[in-house]
Formats: sequence, structure tokens, C-alpha cells
Amino acid sequence: MDSIYSSSSSSSKGKNIITDALSNCFYCKSETTTIKNGWQLYGGDLALLCESCCSAYEDGSFCSRFHKRENGWRDCALCGKMLHCGCIISLKDIVLMDFGGICCMDCGNKYLIRVRI
Amino acid sequence: MDSIYSSSSSSSKGKNIITDALSNCFYCKSETTTIKNGWQLYGGDLALLCESCCSAYEDGSFCSRFHKRENGWRDCALCGKMLHCGCIISLKDIVLMDFGGICCMDCGNKYLIRVRI
Repeated sequence: MDSIYSSSSSSSKGKNIITDALSNCFYCKSETTTIKNGWQLYGGDLALLCESCCSAYEDGSFCSRFHKRENGWRDCALCGKMLHCGCIISLKDIVLMDFGGICCMDCGNKYLIRVRI
Repeated sequence: MDSIYSSSSSSSKGKNIITDALSNCFYCKSETTTIKNGWQLYGGDLALLCESCCSAYEDGSFCSRFHKRENGWRDCALCGKMLHCGCIISLKDIVLMDFGGICCMDCGNKYLIRVRI
């Protein structure tokens, strides 16, 4: 049986899971012994990703790297940044606005979060 | 002070709120004495809508009526139906798929819900 060690991070986000055996990245299928937690899947588990896919997921560059030609792109209503909508991978980077449209998390944190206070 | 009567529905979805005074629909601003609960706003409250806007919201035709020229449209990966992504109003009609992309609720109920059992 594989032994599995977790990093000391208390959050599941980007947490390292190091195994003795090779695992496949959920997205790109590359083999790795260091896998990380990514987005939450429909069934509730987290996608287990290689370092490269997880890094792109965490820094918000995943869709601009891998989904450039897909449809669903919208611009942030406040700064114009393009974001990939209708995509589980960019979900964490998007705020849905009350009258329709979206804004990015940076603009959301600056202008919108105060309504929750 | 206005008196407010609620319908007998136990769910907040589409619930009638009848007031003595005229209210404005959250979206189209038309005046009405019969307003209904719509989508959940960023601050947690529900958008209060006129009958026409609420009907379009509930039957999933809102975005095809009012957001036709906006970007963010994607096709259901299973049946090809076009859905408006990155929009708070169509959120209830969309399932995000594990590898990216979306499907409509009809296809989601047919093919995906079983993973939750």
C-alpha cells in the first residue's frame, strides 16, 4: 500500500500529497509523485493535480493557458480583465454581479466586499 | 407602514409578496404591487422582481431575452443548448463539469446527478 504524507498546511488548497508511487495529474495525466489539491469536483472530491497544473490553477492563469480558444470569456465590468466563465477552474477568480456581468476578484475585493460588512 | 402579505408557498423561490404600495422591479424598474423573489444578490438578499422578469428568470429564458448580445455564452457539452455563463441570473440553470465546460440542468439531471448518490 502506498504511504501518503501531507504537507503542514492546514488548508486543503494547494496541499502537497507526496506518494511513493506515481500518480497521474487529473487534468494533464502526466505522472508525478507530488500531487496537489486543485478545484472541487462535481462529486465533492478535489482534483489532484501535478505541480504545473496546480500552479496555473492557483495563480489564475490556467484558462488563459489551456482554454484560450474556448467560448465563455467575459470582461470584468470594472477593469476589463478577461475571465473564463462557465468553467470550474476559473470559478474562484470571478464575482457575479447583482445585475448580471462579472468582476475579477481584485475589483471585487476593492469595491464589493464592503457590502458584506 | 405598508402591509406585506406572503403567499402560502414554503419556499422563497418565486414567492409572491403583495404590498399596498407600488414597488419597483429590481431589474426593469417597472412599478408593481406584486413582486416576487428572484436570484440571490451578492449581499445575501433576493432580487425582488415584477411578474414578467420573475417568470423569465424562473423558466430560464431571461438571458436569451435580455442578454442576447452580451458575451459569456457557452454550449451545453451534452446537448449543445446555449447558456449564459458569468451571469448571476442563469447560474441556477448551469452545471460546471469537472474538466471544464458546462452542461444544462436537464442533461445534468440525466447524466451527472447519479455521482452524488
